[in-house]
Amino acid sequence: MTAQTAAQAKERLYLFDTTLRDGAQTAGIEFSLEDKISVTALLERLGVDYVEGGYPGANVIDDQFFTECRTRDAVFTAFGMTKRAGRSVGNDPGVQATLNAVSDAACFVGKSSSHQVKVALGISLEENLENLRETVEATVAAGKEALVDCEHFFDGYKSDPDYALSFVRTALDAGARWVVLCDTNGGTMPSEVAAIVGEVSKVVPGDHLGIHAHDDTGQAVANTLAAVAAGVRQIQGTLNGIGERCGNANLITLIPTLALKPGFADRFEIGVSSEQLADLTSISRAFDDLLNRAPARQSPYVGTSAFATKAGIHASALAKDFSTYEHVPPELVGNERNIMVSQQAGKSNLLAALKRHGIELGKDDPRLERLLRTVKEREARGYSYDGADASFFILAHGVLGTLPEFFDVESYRTSVERRHNARGEQVVVTEAVVKIRIGDQLLMSVAEGNGPVNALDLAMRKDLGVFSTRIADLELVDFKVRILDGGTGAVTRVLVESRDGTGERWYTIGVNTNIIDASFEALYESITYKLMKSEAA
Amino acid sequence: MTAQTAAQAKERLYLFDTTLRDGAQTAGIEFSLEDKISVTALLERLGVDYVEGGYPGANVIDDQFFTECRTRDAVFTAFGMTKRAGRSVGNDPGVQATLNAVSDAACFVGKSSSHQVKVALGISLEENLENLRETVEATVAAGKEALVDCEHFFDGYKSDPDYALSFVRTALDAGARWVVLCDTNGGTMPSEVAAIVGEVSKVVPGDHLGIHAHDDTGQAVANTLAAVAAGVRQIQGTLNGIGERCGNANLITLIPTLALKPGFADRFEIGVSSEQLADLTSISRAFDDLLNRAPARQSPYVGTSAFATKAGIHASALAKDFSTYEHVPPELVGNERNIMVSQQAGKSNLLAALKRHGIELGKDDPRLERLLRTVKEREARGYSYDGADASFFILAHGVLGTLPEFFDVESYRTSVERRHNARGEQVVVTEAVVKIRIGDQLLMSVAEGNGPVNALDLAMRKDLGVFSTRIADLELVDFKVRILDGGTGAVTRVLVESRDGTGERWYTIGVNTNIIDASFEALYESITYKLMKSEAA
Repeated sequence: MTAQTAAQAKERLYLFDTTLRDGAQTAGIEFSLEDKISVTALLERLGVDYVEGGYPGANVIDDQFFTECRTRDAVFTAFGMTKRAGRSVGNDPGVQATLNAVSDAACFVGKSSSHQVKVALGISLEENLENLRETVEATVAAGKEALVDCEHFFDGYKSDPDYALSFVRTALDAGARWVVLCDTNGGTMPSEVAAIVGEVSKVVPGDHLGIHAHDDTGQAVANTLAAVAAGVRQIQGTLNGIGERCGNANLITLIPTLALKPGFADRFEIGVSSEQLADLTSISRAFDDLLNRAPARQSPYVGTSAFATKAGIHASALAKDFSTYEHVPPELVGNERNIMVSQQAGKSNLLAALKRHGIELGKDDPRLERLLRTVKEREARGYSYDGADASFFILAHGVLGTLPEFFDVESYRTSVERRHNARGEQVVVTEAVVKIRIGDQLLMSVAEGNGPVNALDLAMRKDLGVFSTRIADLELVDFKVRILDGGTGAVTRVLVESRDGTGERWYTIGVNTNIIDASFEALYESITYKLMKSEAA
Repeated sequence: MTAQTAAQAKERLYLFDTTLRDGAQTAGIEFSLEDKISVTALLERLGVDYVEGGYPGANVIDDQFFTECRTRDAVFTAFGMTKRAGRSVGNDPGVQATLNAVSDAACFVGKSSSHQVKVALGISLEENLENLRETVEATVAAGKEALVDCEHFFDGYKSDPDYALSFVRTALDAGARWVVLCDTNGGTMPSEVAAIVGEVSKVVPGDHLGIHAHDDTGQAVANTLAAVAAGVRQIQGTLNGIGERCGNANLITLIPTLALKPGFADRFEIGVSSEQLADLTSISRAFDDLLNRAPARQSPYVGTSAFATKAGIHASALAKDFSTYEHVPPELVGNERNIMVSQQAGKSNLLAALKRHGIELGKDDPRLERLLRTVKEREARGYSYDGADASFFILAHGVLGTLPEFFDVESYRTSVERRHNARGEQVVVTEAVVKIRIGDQLLMSVAEGNGPVNALDLAMRKDLGVFSTRIADLELVDFKVRILDGGTGAVTRVLVESRDGTGERWYTIGVNTNIIDASFEALYESITYKLMKSEAA
C-alpha cells in the first residue's frame, strides 16, 4: 500500500469548537463582540471544522455576533434549546432565534436522561422526544445542518439505556447530521465512556456520533480519546480547555495527540494540517493573551515547561538524544526545547540558553566557564534564572562585556508613613525620589504610589531623558515576591513580568534582603532589557 | 455479605508522594528546608502512605532534610540512582548517600529500556541488571524497604519487552518491595498502559507493582487509573500535579476518584479517611500558598470553580436538585458549591471552622450570618482565610465582640534609602519608627532592618511594655507576598507564619495596595494572636 492510499484509507475526525458557547460559561470570562471575532479568527487559523459561535437570543452580544456569517472555512453554528412543550416550533422564540441567526448549522441541546426529563422538565418522556423531533425537522427545513447535544447522556444511559438510545435515534431519524453524547456533569470514567459508546455504536453509525466531555475528574481528554477509539467521529472541545466548572475537553491538547500518536494518527485524519499544528503553541498563547492571563506553564504540548528540563542528569542525556526525555519533537507543535539554567545545570544547558538568546559561543570559550561560575554563585545567593530570561540575557552580556550602560541611578529613597492627619483620619503616604544620571545630565523625579515599589517604578520611568520615548510602551504586567529561607530577615526574590507594544513578555529578577532594593534591581533590568531590545530593532 | 466484610474484601492501594523529589524538578519551584518540613506536615495530614523526601547527596537542602526522620505515619523514603558500573555499592558515593540518609525506605531509579541503557549509559545490558541487583540487595541489607523506579518502562517495553520484564524480575528477586513502572516521557496512552500492565501482571504479582505517570498528553490521571484497573497497587504522584515538564499525576485529583467513584471505591481501600478527604481542598490550597501561587480555579474537585455554576440554563435545574450538575457532593472533598443559592453551604463550612477554633455557635445565631457576610466581603477584597487561621480567629472574635484590645499602633514610618556614603560607597539604609499606645502609656521605638518589613517588625516588638515578656518567644518563620491581579499598582496579599516556644505555628494575613501596610496588618495580628493565646494559657 502506498503512503497515499494509506492516507486515503484513514477515517475523518471532525473538530467542533465550543469556546464561544460552552467556554463562555467559564467563571471570570466574558467575551465582547470584538473578542468573539478575534477568537473565530484563531479557530480558523487552527483549522477546526465547526465553530459554535454562541446562543442567539440569550444575550445582546450573541445576537450581534450572528448578524453575519463569521467564518469562511468552518461550519458556523448557532446553539439553542429544543422547543418547549405546549407550543409549536414556530411559536417558540428560543428556537426561532437560533434558526433565524445567520449560520450554516444549528446545534440544539435536549435532555436524554429520563430522570432529568422528569425532575428538571416535569414533562412526559414522549413529549420530550416530540420536542426534539420537531426542532430537528424545523432545522433541516430551514436548510441548515442539524446537530443535537444529548445532555446528561452517560448518566442517563446508566440508569435508563433504552430512553437514552431512543433520544439518539429520534434525533437521527428526524435528520440530524450529528448526535453528540454529553458527559454533562463530567464525572464519567474513560472505561464507562468506552463501554457505553461501544453499545451505542452497535445501533447507530459512529460517523454520526460526537463526544462532549468535561474535566471534573481530570479526564476530559482521556474520555474524548476513549470515545473516539470506541466509535465517535466528532469531538467537541475548547481552546485551552476553558469551560464551566473544571472546563471542557482541551482541543489544544487533543489535536497533537490525534495528529501524532499511535492508535490515532495512523487511523484518523483531522482538518488540521502539519503547518497548522506547528502554529498550535502560538495560537494557544494568543488566546491566553486575549483573555489577559498568563499561559499555564505546564500545559501539555504548548506550555513553556512542556519541553523544559531542569535536571543536570537529564540535560546531558538530552544532548545525546533528544528523544530520551521528549515524547514528541517540540517543533511539530511550534514549541521549543527549554533547557533551564539552574543549580544542577552544566555547560550544555548554558550553551543552549545562550543560543536561544542569539549569543553563539564555542564550547571551549573561557567566558563560558566564567558565566557558569557567575550563574552558580548568583543562584546560591537566591537568584533563579529558570523564569527570568531577560535577567539572564543581561547577565550574559555583562560577563561577555557587551552590556551597554544606558543610565545610572545615583540614589533613590522610598518612604511609607501611616499616621493621623489633621482631621484625625488615619492616612498612609507613600513616596519615592530618584536621581538618575544619563551622561552629564542629572534627572530628579518624585512620585507618590499606592505602595513603595509602585512609587519607585513611577519615579524611575517618569523622566528617562533621551530614552523616554523608547520605553513609552513598556508595561509592568506582574510582580511576584518570594521570601527565601523564611522570616522577615530573610532574602527576598522579586520577579517582574513586563510587556511592550509588540506583545513580547520578559521576566527580570532581583534578590536582596531588602524587598525595595530587590524590586529596584528587577525594575532597572526590565528597563535595560527594553532599551537593548529597541536598540537592536 | 455485611458492610464490614465487604470493606475487608477490598484491596489496599498505596499512595506514594514524590512532591519533594520529582515535584522539585518543576520549573520555578525550589523548596527550602522549611518548605520541605511544611510539605511533609501537609502530606501526613492528607494521609499518604509514602513520602519521598528528596535525593540525599544531590544538594545541601536534601542532605539537611535527611538528618532525621521527618514523618510519623508515612514511610519516609530517600531517592537515589542505582550504582554505577565499575565500582562496588560500597564505593558508590551516590548509593551510600541514599543508604546513609535517615529514612525507612530507599527508592532507586534504574533504566529498564535496553535502548536507553545502550544510548544513555553505554554499558552492557547485563551490567545494568547487576547494578540494580546489588543496589537493591544493599538496601535490604541496610534494613530498609527497597523500591525501584523503572525509568522509561513503557517505551522500553514497547521496543524490548523481554529486557523490561527482566529488569522488573531482577528487582523483585533481589528483594524490592515495590517495582514502579515509569512513563518517564509522559507520552504513553491509557490504552497502552492498560495493555502493558496487563502483560506484566501475568508474570509479576500486582501487589508489588506501582505506576509513575506524567502529564505530557494531559492523561497522567487516566494513565494512573488505567494501571490500577490493570493490576498495580501503588500510585506515585504529587500535590497539585507539580513536576517536571507538564507535571506528575495529581494525587489531589486521584484521591477523590479512588475514594468515591464506581470501579475504584467499591474495589479498593486507600489510607485517606473520609475526614482527611474532607480536608482535601484546604490541603491543596495550603500547598499553593506555600508555593506562593494562586490556586488554579478549574482544578478537579478542589478548584474554586469546580462546583461553580454561572447563572444560565443550569440555574433552575440546580435549584431543584443539586445532583443535576454535580458529579460528587462538594462537601465530601471540603469544597463548596458556588452559586447564587449557596449561603447555606457557606454556613456549615463556617460553623466547622469556628468549632476548630473552639468557638461554638448555634446554626441560627444571627452573628453567624454577620460573620459570613464579613468573610465574603473581605474575600472579595483579596483576603483568603483558607491559609490564615489565626487571622480568621481574630476576625471571628472581632465580629462576635470578644476581641481584646491589647495595644494600639498610633503611627509608624518606614524608609529605605540607597545612596553613596561619605567614602563614595553605595549603601542602603532602612529604618522604621513606631508609636504604640498601651492604656495611658506611649511607647516609641526605632529600629534598623535589612528591609522595611524587618525594620517594622523589630520596631514593633522592641518594647510592648507589660506585654513584652509574653511575646519573648514569638518568632517569625516565614513571610510570603502575593500580588493579586498583577502590576505594581495591584493589591498585595501578605501571609506571615509565626511560631513560639510551644512549637505551635500560626498564620496571619494582610491585604492592601501598599505592601508595607499589608505587612503591618499581618504582623499586628500575629502579635495579637500570640497575646490571646498566652492569655488563655
